[in-house]
Amino acid sequence: MKYKILKKHLSFDGQTLFCEHDSESTQTKMKFSVFVPKKIEEIDSALIWLSGLTCTEENFITKAGAQKCLAGTNTMIICPDTSPRGVGVAGEDESYDFGSGAGFYVNATTEGYKDNYKMYDYITKDIVGLLKEDFQVNKLSIFGHSMGGHGALVIGLRESELFKSVSAFSPIVHPMGCDWGKKALKGYLGEDQENWKKFDTCELIKDGYKAQSLILIDQGLADEFYPDQLLTSELESTCQHFNIELKVNYRQGYDHSYYFISSFIESHIEFHRSFLN
Amino acid sequence: MKYKILKKHLSFDGQTLFCEHDSESTQTKMKFSVFVPKKIEEIDSALIWLSGLTCTEENFITKAGAQKCLAGTNTMIICPDTSPRGVGVAGEDESYDFGSGAGFYVNATTEGYKDNYKMYDYITKDIVGLLKEDFQVNKLSIFGHSMGGHGALVIGLRESELFKSVSAFSPIVHPMGCDWGKKALKGYLGEDQENWKKFDTCELIKDGYKAQSLILIDQGLADEFYPDQLLTSELESTCQHFNIELKVNYRQGYDHSYYFISSFIESHIEFHRSFLN
Repeated sequence: MKYKILKKHLSFDGQTLFCEHDSESTQTKMKFSVFVPKKIEEIDSALIWLSGLTCTEENFITKAGAQKCLAGTNTMIICPDTSPRGVGVAGEDESYDFGSGAGFYVNATTEGYKDNYKMYDYITKDIVGLLKEDFQVNKLSIFGHSMGGHGALVIGLRESELFKSVSAFSPIVHPMGCDWGKKALKGYLGEDQENWKKFDTCELIKDGYKAQSLILIDQGLADEFYPDQLLTSELESTCQHFNIELKVNYRQGYDHSYYFISSFIESHIEFHRSFLN
Repeated sequence: MKYKILKKHLSFDGQTLFCEHDSESTQTKMKFSVFVPKKIEEIDSALIWLSGLTCTEENFITKAGAQKCLAGTNTMIICPDTSPRGVGVAGEDESYDFGSGAGFYVNATTEGYKDNYKMYDYITKDIVGLLKEDFQVNKLSIFGHSMGGHGALVIGLRESELFKSVSAFSPIVHPMGCDWGKKALKGYLGEDQENWKKFDTCELIKDGYKAQSLILIDQGLADEFYPDQLLTSELESTCQHFNIELKVNYRQGYDHSYYFISSFIESHIEFHRSFLN
């Protein structure tokens, strides 16, 4: 076993675990949480949840109510932290939308960040490797929220052979077109916007990438970051133009918070389980 | 309306609200959260949830998954903060188990605390008054966790005409017999243990108090505070001796956390709704 269990809580007859392991990709210790609804031997599929800005491995597993939806099934969930922590690079802890808690699921190439901020590799290699080797699951799906929705879409498109389905809550779908995205992509990847395209969902679709499943999105219409940072309609028009199946549920009155996520998490889990079974 | 809405989140088609009001009892501003599953006019009953040590009005409403269980019903829930805050009395912020976040649902009589630490009155007068006047609900039940389980039991017994049913997760049932309780009762009520008895569930039952319903308790057997601080078996023997109906569900492997509460919250909500309807 290549991970260490830090905390363990029985939940809905399964285990909620908080864990730590050494990451090859980030060259740091990284934390993640999991919920394993049955004995590990009985688990045959996994959901990867990617969280948004400022989150750790704890927010989703504490607030979303996913355990209740997964209880009694053969599907586990894993929720990684959103960046390396405490690597000591200048600017790492200065803002909520860059550095710690804001890895944006890219492989950084800029000075200072390129040694550790490899969150794309961390998810696709370390986390996927851990699931396959330590948990012995091969059927995977991926979803996330906001920055994590961006991560799930980018990874689900670029690594489509790995993931049976992909969905997102309130995702950043076109980071090259919004302030959060421009700041992060410039900071992690430098000035050349050509290098940004492989971390932009709309650009990936224009480049011919496809997910295994239709793409499911839930978007609150009272979301304080909608539409400026999220640019949902850009994804809709791109998918329409390139004939990619996309379902966006716009939810009147819902905001960007975990109160929104928890309200619709069951439908996303059911969506993924329909592809995993 | 005698309360101010600070934050509002649509959840499960209802409203999760964070509010503030002026309390007569504590002579301070106090915060609480509510979940109102339908329009206020359609609500006909309310659950009062009392939280445990260190909690605020936020923990339960964020972590317990109660909204999902109450969605679509006519029953709201209100979750008050666990003490007055920032009243400036010496010792108020020195420990996790006394003062801020640890009001113990008593009416303090000791110097320094007696002016503001009136949490018993706050719940039974201000919160109950708010529910009756501002939300127009008259059918009430009460439950809570740990210190809040103690509060729910004490209030449910002493104000039995107000509450149709009472339940608790991992409650402190005999504070006069445990370290948490002795420290709090001495600090808020002074040395004379006679005065402690009206804030001790076991002593109240010995004194003839009865709740309207049977008392429902869930207790994890891997709870880090069981049995020393909780003394569940004291309540069992007292209830048996005084012919009081008590159901304790001991849960193998479950701890003292919100992972335990969320696993069984639905059954407690169903229990209360069976008395409220």
